[in-house]
Amino acid sequence: MSVPELVDQARAGRSRAVGRLISLVEDSSPLLREVMAALAPHGGHAQVVGITGSPGVGKSTTTNALVGALRAAGRRVGVLAVDPSSPFSGGALLGDRIRMQDHASDPGVFIRSMASRGHLGGLAWSTPQALRVLDAAGYDVVLVETVGVGQSEVDVAALADTTMVLLAPGMGDGIQAAKAGILEIGDLYVVNKADRDGADRVRRELRGMLALGQRRPDAWQPPILPTVAQTGQGIEDVVAALGEHRTHLEATGELQRRRERRAREEVEAIAVTALRQRWGRLQGRADLDELAADVVAGRTDPYAAADALVAAVTRAGESAPA
Amino acid sequence: MSVPELVDQARAGRSRAVGRLISLVEDSSPLLREVMAALAPHGGHAQVVGITGSPGVGKSTTTNALVGALRAAGRRVGVLAVDPSSPFSGGALLGDRIRMQDHASDPGVFIRSMASRGHLGGLAWSTPQALRVLDAAGYDVVLVETVGVGQSEVDVAALADTTMVLLAPGMGDGIQAAKAGILEIGDLYVVNKADRDGADRVRRELRGMLALGQRRPDAWQPPILPTVAQTGQGIEDVVAALGEHRTHLEATGELQRRRERRAREEVEAIAVTALRQRWGRLQGRADLDELAADVVAGRTDPYAAADALVAAVTRAGESAPA
Repeated sequence: MSVPELVDQARAGRSRAVGRLISLVEDSSPLLREVMAALAPHGGHAQVVGITGSPGVGKSTTTNALVGALRAAGRRVGVLAVDPSSPFSGGALLGDRIRMQDHASDPGVFIRSMASRGHLGGLAWSTPQALRVLDAAGYDVVLVETVGVGQSEVDVAALADTTMVLLAPGMGDGIQAAKAGILEIGDLYVVNKADRDGADRVRRELRGMLALGQRRPDAWQPPILPTVAQTGQGIEDVVAALGEHRTHLEATGELQRRRERRAREEVEAIAVTALRQRWGRLQGRADLDELAADVVAGRTDPYAAADALVAAVTRAGESAPA
Repeated sequence: MSVPELVDQARAGRSRAVGRLISLVEDSSPLLREVMAALAPHGGHAQVVGITGSPGVGKSTTTNALVGALRAAGRRVGVLAVDPSSPFSGGALLGDRIRMQDHASDPGVFIRSMASRGHLGGLAWSTPQALRVLDAAGYDVVLVETVGVGQSEVDVAALADTTMVLLAPGMGDGIQAAKAGILEIGDLYVVNKADRDGADRVRRELRGMLALGQRRPDAWQPPILPTVAQTGQGIEDVVAALGEHRTHLEATGELQRRRERRAREEVEAIAVTALRQRWGRLQGRADLDELAADVVAGRTDPYAAADALVAAVTRAGESAPA
């Protein structure tokens, strides 16, 4: 099937075509550029929701409950679940995914697990492209569930319209969350397992810490919502808060600003990768490996070496455009 | 004082000149390039030791004890302490630094706090340059102490010759450490507060998890060392292990490989920054902001936009070399 046909079918709601397109971007297929060009006119509709939190707070259960509630409200839902690829933790979390099978036969739900970029749990490099596939395919909400360690909170906040931070009592999360700075990325805070001891304390601490942050008076005030994802308690309020945040983003122009910032970073990252490939192919004195060896030997310094690299890569552009 | 004079004085052991040079690189002074060029011939001697671990495991106390033990062995020691700049945690950890005043009057010790790069605790961008200052100034060992959250473990492992991961009982560290992947970056593991309940369990768990990782038979086996940094217990063993790791790195050629990898990354990062500044100055259709707006509006896709950016930046290099 051709790329335009795949895109048409994906836009007509065929899950299989959506899956094929995501595989093409994940595998860096030679068709990647054609896919991205074909998707470009059809994006901008989906609300991308990043879901992050420490292991054990109930991210998969909450994602599952959210899918159910969003479906009940007639919304089409995509889920990208970023799995850890570390040999130390690889298998454990996959079990959680089985719960998602609740929605496996629903054509209004598309679920995909993606490998994480590295052993510290960053998002897969192809996550932004996969989001473009789901957006063009007409899913109203795309939930991106991360493993919530290392780099992924930062990554997911950078690419989401709305970032949801999950906490739970008994995880020592209050203080740890503050130290990790995730208090600065949340648009919504969900205190899951709210029926357990200590949930009130987590909410209180969180409220106190959020009050310390400086916000403009007209800025979004991140709500703190108690849930028991296992039973669905509180999930309707989360769905409502997601809608309110989307409305706020649109009304204030923040949605456009976030999306432009994200597009800038995406374009820059692709351009830098292209330039890196180019200087990997340079020959002679301005070869990166040789320059690095010169720096280690003290024959040059990093700045002079970088100058040589930039000069070489731009000269290379002259004689042999990529 | 001129840059060559400052470098001479720093190499003669004057702390004030060392401090001035670090300030020049930290502030991106116009003299930065001259400083880096003047330092280049004098590096390659220091062992850079990254110290990371969760808040509360005793990083500052351990650093302090290590400084004392290394001084007792006649080594000159530099310390770069990366402080969190988050408004949520900014003040709390600074108190720990006061303990470092033990060494404030010792000319064989240089201690510097550096701001972290962002609210998630990454290393300051100028950390590699500050390390070059301390290396050229003849410090035998440079300890880089990070806040141990977010991105900094990864960063510090990337720039250290030897990465030391601290754990302590009662922090839920065993499992969490595995999830965060720090088991894959440590050259040395220190279980601090080894006189407390649960220290044996942490060591056992750690040993079990390290055994799961696949290592070549001739590879370095990271030791697991118990300490009570507060009393100095076990610190001599850590100093010995640092020396053994340095010997291993040199004998296997791994030191050279790590330093070349680091230099490659440093040169690349500086080159990418230079290219970014260049495309920030581009005018017309290939301006990054306009390209990003086109991507958001669906008029182009990120790959086509990146092509335009790369073409523009290399053409700009032709007509107006930076």
